[in-house]
This record gives sequence, C-alpha cells and structure tokens, in this order.
Amino acid sequence: MSKESLDRLFEPNSVAVIGASSTPGKIGYAVVDALNVGKYEGNIYPVNLREKEILGHRAYPTIGDIPEKVDLAVISIPAKFVPDTVEACGQAGVGGISIITSGFSEVGNHEAEERIVEIVKRYGMRLLGPNILGTLSNSQKLNASFAPMLPLPGKSALISQSGALLIALDAGTYLRGVGFDKLFSLGNMADVNFADIVEWLDKDDHTNSIALYIEGMNDGRRFMEVCQKSSKPVIALKSGVSAHGAAAAASHTGSLAGAAKVYGAAFRQAGVVEAQNLNHLFDLTQAFQLQPTMQGDNLLIVTNGGGVGVLATDSAERYGIPLKYLPDDLQVEMKNYMPDFGSAKNPVDITGQAGLEGYQKSIEFGLKQDWVDGLAVLYCETAVTNPMEIAEGIYNAVKAAGSVMDYKPVAVAFVGGEKSAEAVRWLIDNGIPAYDDPDRAVSALSGLRHYARMQEEKIGMAEIAQADDGAYEKALSIIKGARESGRDALTEVEAKDVFAAYGLNVTATTLAKTEDEAVAMAKDIGYPIVMKVVSPDILHKSDAGGVVVNVKNDQMVRDAYKKILDNAMAYDPNADIFGIAVQEMAPFGTEVILGSTTDPAFGPVLMFGLGGIFVEVLKDVTFAVCPVSKAQGLKMQSQIRGARILEGARGEAPRDQEAMADLIARYSTMMYDLRDEIKESDANPVMLYEQGKGLKVVDARIILT
Amino acid sequence: MSKESLDRLFEPNSVAVIGASSTPGKIGYAVVDALNVGKYEGNIYPVNLREKEILGHRAYPTIGDIPEKVDLAVISIPAKFVPDTVEACGQAGVGGISIITSGFSEVGNHEAEERIVEIVKRYGMRLLGPNILGTLSNSQKLNASFAPMLPLPGKSALISQSGALLIALDAGTYLRGVGFDKLFSLGNMADVNFADIVEWLDKDDHTNSIALYIEGMNDGRRFMEVCQKSSKPVIALKSGVSAHGAAAAASHTGSLAGAAKVYGAAFRQAGVVEAQNLNHLFDLTQAFQLQPTMQGDNLLIVTNGGGVGVLATDSAERYGIPLKYLPDDLQVEMKNYMPDFGSAKNPVDITGQAGLEGYQKSIEFGLKQDWVDGLAVLYCETAVTNPMEIAEGIYNAVKAAGSVMDYKPVAVAFVGGEKSAEAVRWLIDNGIPAYDDPDRAVSALSGLRHYARMQEEKIGMAEIAQADDGAYEKALSIIKGARESGRDALTEVEAKDVFAAYGLNVTATTLAKTEDEAVAMAKDIGYPIVMKVVSPDILHKSDAGGVVVNVKNDQMVRDAYKKILDNAMAYDPNADIFGIAVQEMAPFGTEVILGSTTDPAFGPVLMFGLGGIFVEVLKDVTFAVCPVSKAQGLKMQSQIRGARILEGARGEAPRDQEAMADLIARYSTMMYDLRDEIKESDANPVMLYEQGKGLKVVDARIILT
Repeated sequence: MSKESLDRLFEPNSVAVIGASSTPGKIGYAVVDALNVGKYEGNIYPVNLREKEILGHRAYPTIGDIPEKVDLAVISIPAKFVPDTVEACGQAGVGGISIITSGFSEVGNHEAEERIVEIVKRYGMRLLGPNILGTLSNSQKLNASFAPMLPLPGKSALISQSGALLIALDAGTYLRGVGFDKLFSLGNMADVNFADIVEWLDKDDHTNSIALYIEGMNDGRRFMEVCQKSSKPVIALKSGVSAHGAAAAASHTGSLAGAAKVYGAAFRQAGVVEAQNLNHLFDLTQAFQLQPTMQGDNLLIVTNGGGVGVLATDSAERYGIPLKYLPDDLQVEMKNYMPDFGSAKNPVDITGQAGLEGYQKSIEFGLKQDWVDGLAVLYCETAVTNPMEIAEGIYNAVKAAGSVMDYKPVAVAFVGGEKSAEAVRWLIDNGIPAYDDPDRAVSALSGLRHYARMQEEKIGMAEIAQADDGAYEKALSIIKGARESGRDALTEVEAKDVFAAYGLNVTATTLAKTEDEAVAMAKDIGYPIVMKVVSPDILHKSDAGGVVVNVKNDQMVRDAYKKILDNAMAYDPNADIFGIAVQEMAPFGTEVILGSTTDPAFGPVLMFGLGGIFVEVLKDVTFAVCPVSKAQGLKMQSQIRGARILEGARGEAPRDQEAMADLIARYSTMMYDLRDEIKESDANPVMLYEQGKGLKVVDARIILT
Repeated sequence: MSKESLDRLFEPNSVAVIGASSTPGKIGYAVVDALNVGKYEGNIYPVNLREKEILGHRAYPTIGDIPEKVDLAVISIPAKFVPDTVEACGQAGVGGISIITSGFSEVGNHEAEERIVEIVKRYGMRLLGPNILGTLSNSQKLNASFAPMLPLPGKSALISQSGALLIALDAGTYLRGVGFDKLFSLGNMADVNFADIVEWLDKDDHTNSIALYIEGMNDGRRFMEVCQKSSKPVIALKSGVSAHGAAAAASHTGSLAGAAKVYGAAFRQAGVVEAQNLNHLFDLTQAFQLQPTMQGDNLLIVTNGGGVGVLATDSAERYGIPLKYLPDDLQVEMKNYMPDFGSAKNPVDITGQAGLEGYQKSIEFGLKQDWVDGLAVLYCETAVTNPMEIAEGIYNAVKAAGSVMDYKPVAVAFVGGEKSAEAVRWLIDNGIPAYDDPDRAVSALSGLRHYARMQEEKIGMAEIAQADDGAYEKALSIIKGARESGRDALTEVEAKDVFAAYGLNVTATTLAKTEDEAVAMAKDIGYPIVMKVVSPDILHKSDAGGVVVNVKNDQMVRDAYKKILDNAMAYDPNADIFGIAVQEMAPFGTEVILGSTTDPAFGPVLMFGLGGIFVEVLKDVTFAVCPVSKAQGLKMQSQIRGARILEGARGEAPRDQEAMADLIARYSTMMYDLRDEIKESDANPVMLYEQGKGLKVVDARIILT
C-alpha cells in the first residue's frame, strides 16, 4: 500500500492544487502555472472555494468535489487549515500529499505536524514536506512546485532538504549544463525522507544517479541500508558540519545535524560519495550521470600542455588516484601519435600542435589498452587549434573505443575562453563530462574511482558479529541492577561483566568487600594484581588515591586495601563505597581505545584510535556506525594516521590486528544490541599485543541512556 | 642600468620583431598582428631579411638597420640563429629581449642559452625567455606575444612559467571575468625570473596584485625576499607538488621543482597566498584585485537562504575563519531589516522574501559595525526576486558604507541560473568579487584574511640569530679536517663541536683513545655517562653493539670501553675506529628533532618535529627556509599537530618553548652560514625539558656537500 501511495505521490496521473489561485504572485498561482508551462499531461484540478476556473482548468471548491480519486494533492493554504484539508484528502482517496505550506516543526509547531502525520498514516497516504518547494519530473512533464521551470533534462535526480536551494539549483542546471530528470524538495520530512526517495528511485528507469543535499536526518540507519542496496550511485553534500554551522542548520530546518565525522563514516559505510561543496556536487553528478565508475587505479592523462598535465597530476595524487607511468611498450606505440618532442610517459603530452587527429588517435589508442582504467583529457586553448575540433576528436575517439566505454570513464577539462566554454558544453551534450579546470575533471574521476572502491569493499552492515547466547539478557540484568539503585553509570566491575557477556577479553575483575575476600580473589587471579576503589561517587579513581598497581603478595593486598579505603574516605567522606576491585594486571602493550556514543541520526557510533596522546592530543581516531563487520574492524585500523604503529613500526612486531578487528566487531554488536540502554561507553585502555598474542581490555566505562 | 633595461623590456617605446613575417600562421606574423590589433602606440619595426613591408610597417633587414635604439626586440627565429641575433641587438643598443623561440635548455640545449645570457649581460640588456609566449600590457596597449588578444582589462598581473597555459588563461580572463593589466610568460628564465618581475611590478601604477603560476625556480631565496617586501599581494599556484608531478615538471621546463612542503613553507615565510588550482588562483586574484585585505577574524554572512548560509558557515570553518555570533545588541538592530522569521545571529538570514531593500539595509548596517571585519553576501535565486536587483542592493550598500570599504572586504555568491550569472558579472564589473558557490566566496575572503595574518606576523628572514664570533671559522676548520681525511660526513663528536661553536647546547662529548682517557673524561663530565663507538665505517652504532648507556663508575667505563671495541671489531674487522665518545647522559625529556636539508630552489631548509613515532610514523613535522627568527621558531612549534604536547598536555608542565625557539633560530643561522658546506644535518634527539629548564642536543649528524 505505501509503495503504491509513493508511486501516486511521485508519478501521479492527476494533480489537485489545494489553494490554487488566479492571482499572479501567489504560490497557488505559481503551481498551476508551473503545471501548465511544464505541459503536464495528467488531469489538473485547482481547488478553490470561490473561483470556478483557474488558468484554464475547472476549479473545485473542495478536494471531495473532484470527480476522480486524485493521485497527488499539492497543498499551499495557510498552516492552520492544513490538518483538516489533509483529512479531507484522505476521505477523498488521495494517494500522496505534497505540503508546500511552512509554519510547522521548523518554527516549533510540532503538534500540527504530528497531527497531519497521524491523518496521513491513517489513510495510507504518503506525505512530502511540509515546508517544501514541491516535486519536478522531466520524464512526466510534471512540475508540481512553485519553481518556474523544469530542470535541464538529464538522468540524475536531486533531493534537497532546502527548498530555497532547490529552486536556485533548478535554474542552475541550465547554467551548469548538468541535467536532471527529477527534483525533490524534502522540507521537514514529517513522513517521506531521503531513504524513501532513494529506495523509490532505485526502480525508476529515468534515473541513473542520485544527488542529495542533506542538512540532517532522523533515521540515518535506514538511509545507510537503502544506499548500500541502491544500484545507483548516491552523491551527498552534507551541510552543517562545522560546530557553528550545525547550530545554524538546527535553527533552519528543525532538523538534527550530526558531526562531520559521523556523517563521513556513515557515507563510507553506505557507499555514498561525499561532495565538498555545491560545485563539487554538480561536478560529481555530471560524471556519475554520464560515465561508468572506474574499475582500477590506472588513470591516463592526455594533454596538449605540460602545465595543465602537471596540475592534473598533482590533483590525481591529492584525490587518491596517483599517476603511474604508462608501461614501456605502450609508450613506444603512443609515441606514434605525437610530434617528436611530445611525451608518452603519462601525462601523455601530445604538444600544443595537437589538433583533432592528435587527440583522436592518442585517446583511441589509450582507451583500448587494458592497462588504462580511466582517462582525463586536457586541452589548453591555443592560437592554432579550434576547441570545437578538439572536442570532436575526443568524441570520435570515445565512440571508436566502443564497448570499453561501458567500464572506463573519461572526463575532460578545457582551459580557455568562450570557444572552450562552447566546446565544453558540446561535450556534455554529447555525453562526455567536461570542466573548466583540470582539477575538477580529476576530482570527478576520483569520485568514480572512490565509488568503485567502496563497492569492492562492500563492508559495513553485512557479516556482523553474533552475540553469544544469553549475552543480551545478562547485560540487561546488570544494567537493570544499576538502574534500580538509581545510577545511570555502571561501575567498572559491572561494565566489565557486560563486556565479558559479549565475549570481550577483559582483565579478570572481582569485587572484594573485605580484606580477606580481596586476598582470596587475588590468589585466584594470580599475582601481580591491580586494586581500585569501586564507588559511583568517585569517578576519577587515580586522583582520589583509589588505585594501587603491581600488588605482588597477600600482605600488599591487605596494605593496599586499607590505603585505598583511607584515601577514598579522605577524598569524599560521604562516598558510597561498594568495595575494592581486585583485578588482573595486564602486561603492557600498545594502548588503544574503543568508545561508543549515540548520534541523533545514526544511533550507536563506534570510535577507534590509539590511546594516550594519540587520542587526547592528536585526535587520531576514526568512526563507524554500529554494528560493523570484522572486515571493517580491520579497515578502521588502517584509517588512523598512526596505522603504521599497528602494522609494526620501528622494528616492532605487528600488533594483533585480527584480535583487534574481532574486538571492534563484538563491541559494535554489543552497542547495537544495547542501543536503547547505553548512551556512551569506552574500553580505555585496551592493551594490544603482538600478532597472535591477543589483547586485554583493561578499563571499562558504560553510561546509561 | 639593469633597472632601466627592465623598463625598456616591459614598457618599451619601440618594438622590433625579429623574424617578422607576412605569412599568416607564422609566429612572426602573429606577433606583428597582435601589436597592430592591440593598437600599440610606439614604433613597430618588423625585421626580415627579404621583405620590405609587413602588415603595414616598413621592414628592416637587420636590427642594426633600424634608425633608432629599439627598446624591446621580440625574437622568433630558429634557435640556431638566436645567439648571433642577440649579439646584433646588443650592438644596436636594444634594451630588452624577449625570445619566443624554443629549443634551448628545456630540451637540454644549455650551451646556446648560456651563450645568450653572456651576450645579454655583456651589453647590459635584460632577457625574457627563451621559450615564451611574450608579454602583454593593457595600459600600454602592448601585445608583444603571439596570443591573439590582450586580456580583459583589470589591475592584476599574471606571471606564468608555462606559455601554453598563459595563452589559454588570456582567453580565459574574458570567460571568468577576472581582469589583468599585464601578462608575462617566463619560459626558461635564463635571465628575468619571478623575483625580477614581482619587484618591478611593485612600482607599477597599473597593478595592485600579482598572480603566479610556478613550475619551479632556481633562486627561491631572492624570490622570498622580493615577495616579503612587495607592497602588493602575491598569489601563487605551484604545480608539480606530487612526486609524479615533480618529475613531469622537470621534463617540461627543465626547471627544478621542489617539494610541496618546502614551497608551502617558503610561501608562508614570504607572505605569499597559495592557490590550490587554476580556478582558485583566479578566484583569489579577483578578490585581491577588487577588495582590501581582511583586518580581523569577524566574518559576517548575509543570506536569503538558510541552506547556503550553513554551507558558507562550513566553508568558513574549513578555511580558518570560523563564524561567531553577532553581538546581542547588533542582533537586535539587525532584526529591523528582515521579516520576523528571519535570523540575525550570523549567518544573518534575511529570508527568501528579501529583495533589493532587504539586502541593501542589512548589508549597510552590517558593514558599518566595528565588530564586522569582512562580509560574505549570499543569494539563492528565487521565483519572486530579480538577481540583478539584488546585485544593485548589494552595490548600493557597499557604496553607502563609504570609507569602511577601504579596510573591509566583501565577496558575493549567487546560486542560480543565467540571470544570476549576469548579476555576478555585473557585480564584478562594478568592483565586487562574485562567484557561483558560497564556498568560493568564503574561500576568497579567507585568502584576504590569511594574507593580512601573514602581514601581521611579519616573521621570516628578519631578526635572525647572529652567530657567535669565530663560529663560522671554527666550524669550517672542523669541516676542513674531515674533508682532508676524505670524509663527507662528520663524526658525532665533530658535528657536536660544530653545533657548540654556534652556541647549541649539546651534551658534553669528548673522544677517548684509551681506557684511561675515557675514565678521566667520564670523571670530568660526571656520572652517569654514555659511551659510543666513533668510526666513519659504523653508521648504525647501536646495531653494531657500539653504544652503552647509563655507565655509572670507573670500572663500568673500562668494561664498556672493551666491550664496545670488541663489538665494533666483530661487526666490521676493517672499520677505522677513531676512539670511543664519552658523553654526558642527558636526563629524559620530550624528544624533538631538528634537521636540515638542501632544497634546489631555496637552499638550506629546516625541519622541526617531535621525535620517535611522531616523526617516523606520523610525519608530524614542519619546514622553514633558513635562516628563521626566534619568533618563527616559536611559530614552528605551533604548526605541528602535536603542538599541544609542547604546550603541556595531559597535566604535564609546558616544555621550554623559548629555549626551543632559540635553538631553532641558532640552528637555522648555522645552516645558512654553512650552506656551501653542509648538505644535510640533524639534531636527533633533542631532549626538551619543562619551561625554564632548557634542552640538550643528544645526538648530532652532519653530511657535507
């Protein structure tokens, strides 16, 4: 049912405009006019209490008066009338509702928005908005928005959380030469969100790539799942990544903006290509729309100018696809397609004398070589060549290369004046992405490569670690115990018991209530041991003199027991002391840290890094949305700057990265399982030993929701 | 004399074109045609052995036949005839020579190029090229190049090492709307180089900012000095910063391309703003040409759309000018210039309803506030506003703000379609930099701020540390001794003696040749001590068992002496062992590293970083061209990612950053003094103690040129 309603919302056979008007300047006028100008072929029903006809269409007083069950109702009446009107739509059998009207949750009016959602769900309708521009579709000639025109036709779809930006970008499609079949405005996302539309577009024949402008989201996890499954590349620009920007985003859409790092991690896991700014979003969209992804790392650059060749080479390294020299035998052949003083190395410099033929032959030869995975063609406008002819040469070569173009992308940069700009536009019109700067072309190609790499890895939510039987129940009972005693944090002993339930290798830790108990426990564990005060009132145990390490015998246990108690009392005479933790002393290893936090959009998120100075000063950490697979646990270890320390730097043996990956996977499963219970947690430090020797979680912390 | 010749080269009253031709397609034709089309008002003298008249000008068989002393001779004859022709120019009293012809050092033909330089110097002429496009100047109506047109007029100058790129960018000035008064092609830089032109432009009334495209340079140090002194901002794009790219640059111009880090350091020290790509070079040039620099950190953003406001906020943080909220009292007033649902916080969101008046009033109010140091104005094209009217509102506000515009920069971004593009062009024509993406506008403003910060710091080559009297002589005699014994590396003891001569606090180290000597020296220094083998044949002393630390008494000295000798003999029976170094054992401190290397463009370059893993794994280091001041020594300590460790992280006392800055300054003076002798050096580790407690250089290494 909801699928059907989405179809009716996005591919309607009939559109009612509630709040339609004959007065130019009103949104209700603009929407009907837009439907007319766009030459929408379905039925158009203006709804207006007083008017009989609007812009050539018979008008109806209410939605209920229309003689058919309308697929899409576009609503642009004042906010206070909207809920009743939505109810009327439901009664009239409307499929989808698009509420342009603002004045709902974005200004704090949550109640009305919730009421609308309730009505929509009750009738099985779907709702876009409120607070939106509308939807536009070239293939359906449907402009159900107050934007004055449909976008430049193309095979991408753009979903924007900001309506103001979308209307500007709609006009911008013509200026930038990047075509779209569909534009969607999301607004407050009371019902339909990014995930819904991405999922729906995956089945849309008119779309081959999806661009997103995101301010924030609530159900990040479903978004990730949908993007992972999407057969069509998704490119996203996330705004509100600065501390200050996040605040502005929140005030703008009433949406929750997450941290840059969390979105970055979520995009990586979901295989979403991240854009850096608006131009980059368009540049990537153009490339993904017109070209296949790049299946290997070998980028070939063909240029008529050394300078732009070197600039492109710098860009390739910067964007993660560093250049390699063309194999010698190919260089020998490539030399046939340029003057003597050209260079066949890569960048292939066919010199400033190169015209249509020089470009055509060198490119055709290059594209046919198995070695070549992708191609950047650069042209510096000269006095003796004609940009449009060069463009033709490039086009001819690409056509001649035939089926290899199904898996080898090409991008072009022309540096020059108006003639070059014309040639760039002609290339785009003929299916070849083209730009005004080598950096943009290489950046776009790197996006095609980056996407393919993410697809190859296919890590993320698949193959997650399974928790041991009973782990969840055991953890829950410990948590319940703490809650019952009024605490929202577990003690170290409790936290380690939760960790242990999920199979984490924690240092053996028991809670002694008397000296004798402590001695007995110490003997059980085996000397040396560590002893620590356990009290919900003493968070910084070391500062309170509540920790004694390297306790080697029974007498030392007794001495330490007394000393810790004395120190704790002195530190806080009213502290509630549960006892003294008697704990296995882990051998020294490489200190790492695992932690989790709860992100408003994505739920439990895992952080991994090296301990001590690395995390505190260098902030050398990486994030992933829970749960993550063991494969991704390995990958996370390679994502930090200090990765080489784990691989065995400075003559040291490699660390046990397998064991670490296993810990990461289990930890992430634990945090995902317990997402309704745990707000924050960490395992800090974890001692990581050399390959084959495993690890130990030395300290544990869990803060409850 | 050379100054005068440069004037004649760049502002000629007469131009001879040697190799002028009546045949279209020839460069000698293109140059005369370009002079004509540009409406050059000085005398034009085609030089051609056979023709009597070329393109309306009387032709002369040789330069000597021209009836006046020509200021500029443009040469485009085959390479083999060039030297004799230059000689003839000298005899004829030519002032400056511009050699378009290629086929010199860029293809390995150094001899001919050197011969030309010798001739030029002998006659006191100046030479541009060879292998260039030529020079272009709007204010003189001089197009002495084979580019078909003068650039879009403006107040910048562009100096490009690549002629091919320059001709393309010349056409691009119209497309991009960025105007230039002058374009220079540098080619092989046999004589005139970047420094010469930047210095000359500093006195040019028609230029207010200078853009550079750099592939490599030979005299980087003079370039830095000239840029430091330049009253006009210099913006540079350096190509060939990737490993692969550097190789390509070398093969392209025969020039030496340095590492990205060294150029980055040199630019910082010289106050040069670095561009990331061609578009960025143009974006920055436009901003510097049209706007003052930004004197403080407070950026105000005025926008009609929340989305672009947040994007700009993200960019501001990314580019180092993070946004702050407008002070409360200003927010209250600002609120008068927008609808109720707008936001006066910053970004100031005057809402999608804002037209000419909304923009004009809010901007005018904002610009007048002392709090505001710079302004970004954003506009998202809407259905109800006219981009050109918004542009007018912005323009009116800027005019009304009056003299504050002498020190407050503004930049604009319009996101939209063709109408927005027209408005952008109109704004540029009216002196306001404008772009198609908020990111570009904020990036340009950040360049204006970054430049002002570099000017405020004014650190670098000034206030360098003075070496102690006799230091240079002493160092030289130690180096001479090593060279005389056929070594190109100093021993540790020798290197420390050089360091000590320059006032560096090294661990006391003496060379013992017998056990008894070692004991006596150890007593002198005071226990504990360290003992190390000293041999030019044993570089890795520890691997050879050649180091014993923590030697505490006479007997241990004797034991260690024997052991080290035995180990050394076993390691390499043929090693030439100079003796055993007896060395003060420095207390443990924060390990840092200082090193120097010799860059082909900039000479001795200093590296500073934290020791051990930080330098080896994280590569957390920073560079500066020697010599550097103590102030810059302090700054370098803040440039590494681990800077907080030096400031006192995790409860530790701050390190002695003053002592470290002093060491950096002295070390850099030493390396600058000894630049003809020392190729590489390091002080590694240096033990840096807490504030007030100084440091110790524990190990020293010097490799000779």
